Parts: sequence; C-alpha cells; structure tokens
Amino acid sequence: MKRIADSTVRRLSAYLRFLEDFDERGLTTISSEELAQRGGTTSAQVRKDLSFFGSFGKRGLGYSVPELSRQLSDILGLGREWRVVIVGAGKIGAALAQYRGFRQRGFVVLRAYDNNPDKIGKTVEGMAVSDISQIERDFARDQPDIVVLAVPGEAAQRILDRIVKTGVKAVLNFAPTQLQAPSDVTVKTVNMAMELESLSFALTNRDS
Amino acid sequence: MKRIADSTVRRLSAYLRFLEDFDERGLTTISSEELAQRGGTTSAQVRKDLSFFGSFGKRGLGYSVPELSRQLSDILGLGREWRVVIVGAGKIGAALAQYRGFRQRGFVVLRAYDNNPDKIGKTVEGMAVSDISQIERDFARDQPDIVVLAVPGEAAQRILDRIVKTGVKAVLNFAPTQLQAPSDVTVKTVNMAMELESLSFALTNRDS
Repeated sequence: MKRIADSTVRRLSAYLRFLEDFDERGLTTISSEELAQRGGTTSAQVRKDLSFFGSFGKRGLGYSVPELSRQLSDILGLGREWRVVIVGAGKIGAALAQYRGFRQRGFVVLRAYDNNPDKIGKTVEGMAVSDISQIERDFARDQPDIVVLAVPGEAAQRILDRIVKTGVKAVLNFAPTQLQAPSDVTVKTVNMAMELESLSFALTNRDS
Repeated sequence: MKRIADSTVRRLSAYLRFLEDFDERGLTTISSEELAQRGGTTSAQVRKDLSFFGSFGKRGLGYSVPELSRQLSDILGLGREWRVVIVGAGKIGAALAQYRGFRQRGFVVLRAYDNNPDKIGKTVEGMAVSDISQIERDFARDQPDIVVLAVPGEAAQRILDRIVKTGVKAVLNFAPTQLQAPSDVTVKTVNMAMELESLSFALTNRDS
C-alpha cells in the first residue's frame, strides 16, 4: 500500500468520531461537506483521504453513516483487540491507565512495569505493576502489540532497545526525547513541550 | 505570513532539539543532511522548512549551530516567558505540572483550577489549585497566555467557552473530544486514543 501520511490517519480517526456522533444522533447519511465542516477541512480533502482506501459513498447521495463508520474502523485496525503494556508507572502511566477512551477502542492495558520497589507488586489505577526486569520473560509469554513508554528521557532509548528485541512493533513514547528504532518498528512520540511550542509559535506568528 | 503547516512546526521543534544536542557536544556547524538524518527526513525538506522564515546557512558551509538554534528559538516564540494555567487538576494535569521540560522552554505554570473541594486550596505537584469558578476573575488579573485543558470530555466545551471569553488565544486540550473555538483561538488537541489508533493503523497496514 502507498505510504499514508500521519496527518491523513489523524483525520480518519477524527472522521470516525464524527460519524459515531452522527450515528448516536440518528443520522444515516452524511455528505463529504458535512464531514469536512466538522473536521475544519475541505470536502476535497475528505474525498482524497478516503480515496486511498477504495471507493466510498455514492455521488450525490453521500456516505452511509454506519457503513463508512465500520469501514473506517476496519481501516484503522479497530475491529480487534490490541494488547497494550505501559512501561513506567509514574503519573503519565497512571493517567493513561485510567483513560476511559482506550478500552472502548479495543485497547486493553494488560499491565504496567516499573523499577521502583515501592510500586512493584502493587496496583496503580487498577493496573498491576510488575518488575521492569521481567519484560523479556513476560513479553515472550504475553506478546503485547503496543507498548506505551512513559519513563524518564535518559532511560528511554535503553528500554526501547530491550522492548524492540522482544519483537514489539509499535511504541507510543511519552519520554521527551527522540528515539531510534529499526524501520519495521513504528514509534510515535507525544512530546508535551513540543505541543506547547506549537502554541507559542501560533501566538508569536498571529496576524495582528 | 504564509500559513505554516503543523507538521512543519513540529519539525522545527525537533530541529531545535537536535541543534541543542549538537551544541552540548561542542559542534559548531551542521549540514542540512545531518539535521535531516537525525529527524528521519530529507535535506530538501529541512531547507524547505527553514526557507519559510528567511535565508539560513551558507551554501557548502552548512548552518552555524548556535545561530540557527537561536533563530529557531525565536521563530518558535521561545525567547520569552509564557504564562500557563492548567484547568483540571486530575492525573493528566498533575503529570503536566511536574513535567520538567516546560520551564526550560519558558513555559511557567502559574496555577491549576479544579471543581473538587478536596483539591481547592491545596497543592498538587507543587502547584496551587484554585476554584474553577474563579477563572474569569483570576484570568482578568493574571492574563495567562496558554491554558492546558485537562477536564472530562463532557465538561470541555463549556469550560473552553468560558476560557475563550476571558481572551485566552491558545489552548492545549487533553479532553477526548473535538472542540469548537473562534478562528482567532488556536486549540491543539492531544487525544491519547487517536495516538493509539495511528499505531493500530500502522500495525494493520504493515507490508508483510
């Protein structure tokens, strides 16, 4: 398949949310204009985003809400359960563990790992915390699909290297550092400082 | 100024981090190829990203590390202090309050707000928690630049509307919901479930 840009995938996720919202409100069809308006984009962009994945909707009739919803869900890989492990049971790890949106989407958090003896063997936000030294053994058994990495920056690369060796192919990184991984491993970094920088950029470069 | 894509701003933030890293290691000049390699992009992309903001570097000589670093910092609006307020003193708010990367970049967290009587008047991660009913009065006095919104999804739009009325022009939203704001207000949403969805997309659409 053609390589799909991150920004396209984000828009697909957003469209799916709008469709679910339309569905709850009892709407059965939707035009690309209406989807575009909700997403702050153009109908041409909506049609282009969807065109990567096949042909949807009928000219002049729009899209069937439940059908497009199911198709987007499939495209995003949400038709199944994904096994998620959180490495680092600090504040961000705990905030993620209690995040209600995950389970709804089929992301099941199996467990967290930490190196803090005060946390190991306890539960944090209903999530069991295991010893980080056990990840090689546990991952061989549990085969998690996705690892959320929420450890301090200075430890992140070393721990990522260990995770990669276990065969995990998808990592969501919250450590404030750029990580290196083999090309068959997808690492997404959420960097809070960079998010704030995009706001300071917007404030600084406003048309005034 | 020409509208700059979010993805460009993110790359500028990343380049700045690499430059600071090069600077710490005592390097004084850097080529667009080296910057590109660190960022997983191409040298043409690096030159294009920088070209939006003027002319940098010398053909064949590369960029001066401290000079480009300072210029990027200015472009991103990091040459000054930004006053940040966190609305919602739950786990995500607390995780953000202790995030070391913020202050380094000039983002100063003034205070948090919550509606929980058990939290109001106390401190969370060294951050004073005030009553959310006071934001209109307090914001008029403190004039925060940036609000981090970390409240439940169902309350987010209502609270955003109140924040917008106080004159705040930049909001970083962690509530798992799409928010509407006037066009002169920049709202960035960090949606954890959407980040995971981009990973399930990558896992589902791997070349195998």
